[in-house]
Amino acid sequence: MLLAGTVVADHRTVIEDGAVVVEGDAIAAVGDGATLRDRYPDHERREFGIVAPGTVGAHVHSVQSLGRGIADDAALLDWLNDHVLPMEAGLGADGMRLAAELGYLECIESGVTTVVDHLSVHHADEALAAAVESGIRARAGKVLMDTNAPDGLRQDTEHALAESEVLIWRYHGAGGGRIRYAVTPRFAVTCTEECLRGCRDLADEYDGVRIHTHASENTDEVAVVEERTGARNVEFLHEVGLTGEDVILAHCVHTDEREREIIAETGTHVTHCPSSNMKLASGVAPVEDYLDRGVNVALGNDGAPCNNTLDPFTELKQASLLAKVDAGDPTAVDAPTAFRMTTRNGARAAGFERVGALREGWKADVIGVGTDATRATPLHDPIGHLVFSAHGDDVTFTMVDGEVLYDEARGGHRTLDAGSIRRRAREFDVPGVEA
Amino acid sequence: MLLAGTVVADHRTVIEDGAVVVEGDAIAAVGDGATLRDRYPDHERREFGIVAPGTVGAHVHSVQSLGRGIADDAALLDWLNDHVLPMEAGLGADGMRLAAELGYLECIESGVTTVVDHLSVHHADEALAAAVESGIRARAGKVLMDTNAPDGLRQDTEHALAESEVLIWRYHGAGGGRIRYAVTPRFAVTCTEECLRGCRDLADEYDGVRIHTHASENTDEVAVVEERTGARNVEFLHEVGLTGEDVILAHCVHTDEREREIIAETGTHVTHCPSSNMKLASGVAPVEDYLDRGVNVALGNDGAPCNNTLDPFTELKQASLLAKVDAGDPTAVDAPTAFRMTTRNGARAAGFERVGALREGWKADVIGVGTDATRATPLHDPIGHLVFSAHGDDVTFTMVDGEVLYDEARGGHRTLDAGSIRRRAREFDVPGVEA
Repeated sequence: MLLAGTVVADHRTVIEDGAVVVEGDAIAAVGDGATLRDRYPDHERREFGIVAPGTVGAHVHSVQSLGRGIADDAALLDWLNDHVLPMEAGLGADGMRLAAELGYLECIESGVTTVVDHLSVHHADEALAAAVESGIRARAGKVLMDTNAPDGLRQDTEHALAESEVLIWRYHGAGGGRIRYAVTPRFAVTCTEECLRGCRDLADEYDGVRIHTHASENTDEVAVVEERTGARNVEFLHEVGLTGEDVILAHCVHTDEREREIIAETGTHVTHCPSSNMKLASGVAPVEDYLDRGVNVALGNDGAPCNNTLDPFTELKQASLLAKVDAGDPTAVDAPTAFRMTTRNGARAAGFERVGALREGWKADVIGVGTDATRATPLHDPIGHLVFSAHGDDVTFTMVDGEVLYDEARGGHRTLDAGSIRRRAREFDVPGVEA
Repeated sequence: MLLAGTVVADHRTVIEDGAVVVEGDAIAAVGDGATLRDRYPDHERREFGIVAPGTVGAHVHSVQSLGRGIADDAALLDWLNDHVLPMEAGLGADGMRLAAELGYLECIESGVTTVVDHLSVHHADEALAAAVESGIRARAGKVLMDTNAPDGLRQDTEHALAESEVLIWRYHGAGGGRIRYAVTPRFAVTCTEECLRGCRDLADEYDGVRIHTHASENTDEVAVVEERTGARNVEFLHEVGLTGEDVILAHCVHTDEREREIIAETGTHVTHCPSSNMKLASGVAPVEDYLDRGVNVALGNDGAPCNNTLDPFTELKQASLLAKVDAGDPTAVDAPTAFRMTTRNGARAAGFERVGALREGWKADVIGVGTDATRATPLHDPIGHLVFSAHGDDVTFTMVDGEVLYDEARGGHRTLDAGSIRRRAREFDVPGVEA
């Protein structure tokens, strides 16, 4: 297949009238459109406004998708205890499957080709199966909570770790290698030290398994951990083994100098979730400081109850705008920086090689973006457009590993039954929502 | 016409399975859908996910629309002096007309039915004519700058005021009353005291003419005015007559206690432009404080060079999210508050009566919003959905004064030639952009 258009190959490489040639699961060539049409005359040709790497949602909760909008404007503890946790506890296997399908549906049609997905305590296998079915690239794992968690979500430490291991056996490397496992303790507050150390040991046992958790999202969480352990949250996570190049920490809003040093020195990945941090009033993560220290910072949408959408373009724009107003500097987190965060940095955090840019020999994770809209007119700078103007509805074509998952001009979704998923989601009786 | 769907009549009134009946330029009835279908059996019927009041862009620069994305990530002075002002100075009559058409096109298709539009020094008549042609409701006016402005944009005081008066004669009340004039000094920095006082006198001479200006958007501006006048910016504007119930001040980010008192006591309207304030790193306007004081706060998108889109839904969401993270309170500027800001408050600021809500006898400024998207699924709360999830592309139907301006299912735009405008905008050689 030959995908033609303005090719945004990565955050600093734009090829006007370019093309990307896909053969099998990989990119065979990237370059001038006319040249590549000559060289590959028999490849099926498609035209888009912009051809770009698929984006990476480096911290999402697909299984919260049925909770879209269930707790808007709620105070944080009400949000968690009265809505989100009851929903997660109350969703049976069918609900968890449907929620994950809905999440992947939205990801795929809005240009997310890879997710780092924080599932739930129960029925994570349903979400993992949905990920395989959808064709999305996913680093995902079941949640562990063995303390300070409500009934129905709290598990024995050993039980939680054993279930995780079973899921590693079944899903790590599934979907032709598109699925990789992340051991996923929810956060230090709801996990014993034994559990956290067990997560590290489990991840170390299996090649390529990573660890994904929330860290220092809000001040209450930081205070609870400090009270319990005597250490700052990231220091504590470091002590128990939850830092390193195989660890993805979501949020990292409230960190001190020593914690930032730890994150940088250990090569720990940070996922910035600006809309979620704004909506839950968590604070502003020190993104520029992390980047200056060489930390790999990715972007994530978090879940539907705290962001309402998995559209990656909302976070692209928000990452730049929030950094600018916070720093009082309109040059902060410029468009190329934000774009790199949601592509290459995301792929590094997720732990997939040759993903996150359009380069010869790399994985064919590619999106086509329409630029006919009034809001795309005129279009002076393609990367600026993707960051500040575009949104998920502009994505008309999504390919992962060379497989077309979504093609708006030719029937839409190829792997998921969009109509059925949306209809069932509308009819679903979501736990945690007052009638 | 009978417009059926979930009717969001105003920020606190939702009618499931409702309908809005339009007769002539007004709303004849709002209520239960089945009842109204029985009562008005012969009215043409249309179905939407949500039927809502049109939104009000209470501070826009339609004539900057050709400058979309020309100065992303630029420092403020470069942004203004190297890009925006050269563009405004360089646009001839054709360019100004095209820019305004492009702006109104985007407004109409994304659900804006009323604008408060800050035009430019020259060729404002082209933009006003475009507003009439488009059918949008507009409070608009030519810009006055008689000092500290670059050649090509600086005018003699008398000349600037005289041109304004001619435009009042020609356009105030035009378009069947949809167009009303605002005397529009750019801001205190580029206007002499004589000019500002002249603006007040001119507005007072004509019934229903308002004043629209920028105020206290950034700290440099505030410092310049204080240096020159010895007074804080809003105090100075108050002294020269630029406060009151007929005055719309855009931004008001940097105000002190006394200035806020003046704004509240005089009934001056404030337009909050959150995305613009973030992108230009201007700061965070004290919206909740203004609202607590009883100030009428509306929402605006500002111009394409500092926001990249006139989509009102971006500002709805941003107004809520920015207030929450700034206050550290997830209940700040909740969805109903944001929705009221962009509807009723906007209409009050713009100075149009019986506009901004769906009520019997009020003007038929109505939008239809699709709710089929994955991102709208499930949809627990219609107002929360409009604020946190929806965007301009979901708008499929836009009516002003009972006239259909846009109907996606039946050919799209009715008043503007969308294809021609977009094509010409893409081809236009925009001044201030390096080749």
